[in-house]
Amino acid sequence: MELLLIGIGTGNPDHLTREAEAALRSADLVLIPDKGEDKAELAALRDAICDAVAPAVLRGRFAVPARRADAGYLAGVEDWHDALAAAWAAAIPPGTGRVALLVWGDPSLYDSTLRIAARLRPAPLVRVVPGITALQALTAAHGIPLNDLGRPVVITTGRQLRDHGWPPGADRVAVMLDGDCAFRLLDPAGVHIWWGACVGMARQLLDHGPLAEAGPRIISARAEARARHGWVMDIYLLARHPDSGP
Amino acid sequence: MELLLIGIGTGNPDHLTREAEAALRSADLVLIPDKGEDKAELAALRDAICDAVAPAVLRGRFAVPARRADAGYLAGVEDWHDALAAAWAAAIPPGTGRVALLVWGDPSLYDSTLRIAARLRPAPLVRVVPGITALQALTAAHGIPLNDLGRPVVITTGRQLRDHGWPPGADRVAVMLDGDCAFRLLDPAGVHIWWGACVGMARQLLDHGPLAEAGPRIISARAEARARHGWVMDIYLLARHPDSGP
Ligand SMILES: C[S@@+](CC[C@H](N)C(=O)[O-])C[C@H]1O[C@@H](n2cnc3c(N)ncnc32)[C@H](O)[C@@H]1O
Ligand SMILES: C[S@@+](CC[C@H](N)C(=O)[O-])C[C@H]1O[C@@H](n2cnc3c(N)ncnc32)[C@H](O)[C@@H]1O
Repeated sequence: MELLLIGIGTGNPDHLTREAEAALRSADLVLIPDKGEDKAELAALRDAICDAVAPAVLRGRFAVPARRADAGYLAGVEDWHDALAAAWAAAIPPGTGRVALLVWGDPSLYDSTLRIAARLRPAPLVRVVPGITALQALTAAHGIPLNDLGRPVVITTGRQLRDHGWPPGADRVAVMLDGDCAFRLLDPAGVHIWWGACVGMARQLLDHGPLAEAGPRIISARAEARARHGWVMDIYLLARHPDSGP
Repeated sequence: MELLLIGIGTGNPDHLTREAEAALRSADLVLIPDKGEDKAELAALRDAICDAVAPAVLRGRFAVPARRADAGYLAGVEDWHDALAAAWAAAIPPGTGRVALLVWGDPSLYDSTLRIAARLRPAPLVRVVPGITALQALTAAHGIPLNDLGRPVVITTGRQLRDHGWPPGADRVAVMLDGDCAFRLLDPAGVHIWWGACVGMARQLLDHGPLAEAGPRIISARAEARARHGWVMDIYLLARHPDSGP
């Protein structure tokens, strides 16, 4: 079996590349996760992409298993990946040649699809098709560079920022997977934030400014979006000038 | 004037997104840099993209000015950006409505286009269309994640790695803009490298392995590719397990 992990971008069907379109069209089966009511919007986007690009390709659905809340973080994730691999396997009829999965953003960035694929037996041939990440959607929407001239950038998670603070030596930090606005815990002096929620989608929200001023606005906008839609995905880039503090 | 900065990916015309195709088609003029003989291949790729996607759009060419070697690094870059902004302005006939520039990879990542655009007067309306980066092309070609599970990643340059060594606190480091294999200067113990040259292009080269073994192979392969074609662009991801060393 061949498994195509196809990056689809972050909610705008026009993020799809020509390579992604061709890969999807070439598949015998495309697996669509069924995430339950909350994120029905996201399942609908995957169907819309298939309808538009590859209406003739068969669709197989699988239920996304629930995460175990009682295990430690990593153990919980491992079990969950095992359960996902089993759910994929059950949704693939024996003898299927080429199976496609539509991966949010790019399969390389804070995504489990490659790790789940590595659990399948017999091991499939895996091919990755890159897609636009949420980070690129964010910088494009704000019209800003990710890095300062010739300088490094750290990409990290809300949990890391909360537990370890501003990464040592970094002047730009991009934060993903942050359910709780971990920027609240930083000293805002000299820090600028560029924030986006549901970037690329119809309900996109953007804000930016000095963290001391924009931070509170973002916290309210995020809470309001979450209350209205039941969920929100957001991402931000923080910049601190090397000469602006310790 | 409206200026479209369109990410085109890294050498594979199929990296183009639907958004990029539509943006290019909507332009009144597309500016093509003329980089001289060495990188004629890259100018040809831009023309091939225009031929395939937007043959009717007018093309304006501008000569890429030479970099001043005598100034300090940053001063040299500033002067060069000024000269580039002047070269663009000279190539845009007065009254042109919408001008497109085809940006290698994604306009946010180690690219000067946004900074050059900010020098134009009167200030144009700038719209950025994201594109597949060399880093995504690398991880896709190797079929690997960029980050360890829930962990940070540092994106940096060969110069930074050479001058400052392994970034503090990082377990994964992606390196771009490295003309001299700065990984040579690292203690290779416990470090794994995934390397690619001209990723996505017909002449793509890939290698990976423990740095102690793969490093010397990569140095030769890079030198050979450079000797054969006159230039080479490469990128790599380094991983060091948090428990594998200081
Ligand atoms: C599991 S990660 C997947 C990232 C994805 N693979 C990518 O390349 O962008 C999910 C996180 O990505 C970010 N994200 C994904 N889509 C987003 C969007 N449309 N707007 C804002 N953030 C988004 C959020 O930080 C979210 O917590
Ligand atoms: C000026 S930066 C531009 C990066 C580009 N904006 C992007 O998004 O990938 C040039 C560097 O990108 C990397 N690069 C660009 N294209 C590449 C390719 N096809 N293969 C390997 N590395 C590439 C190399 O590290 C090169 O030194």
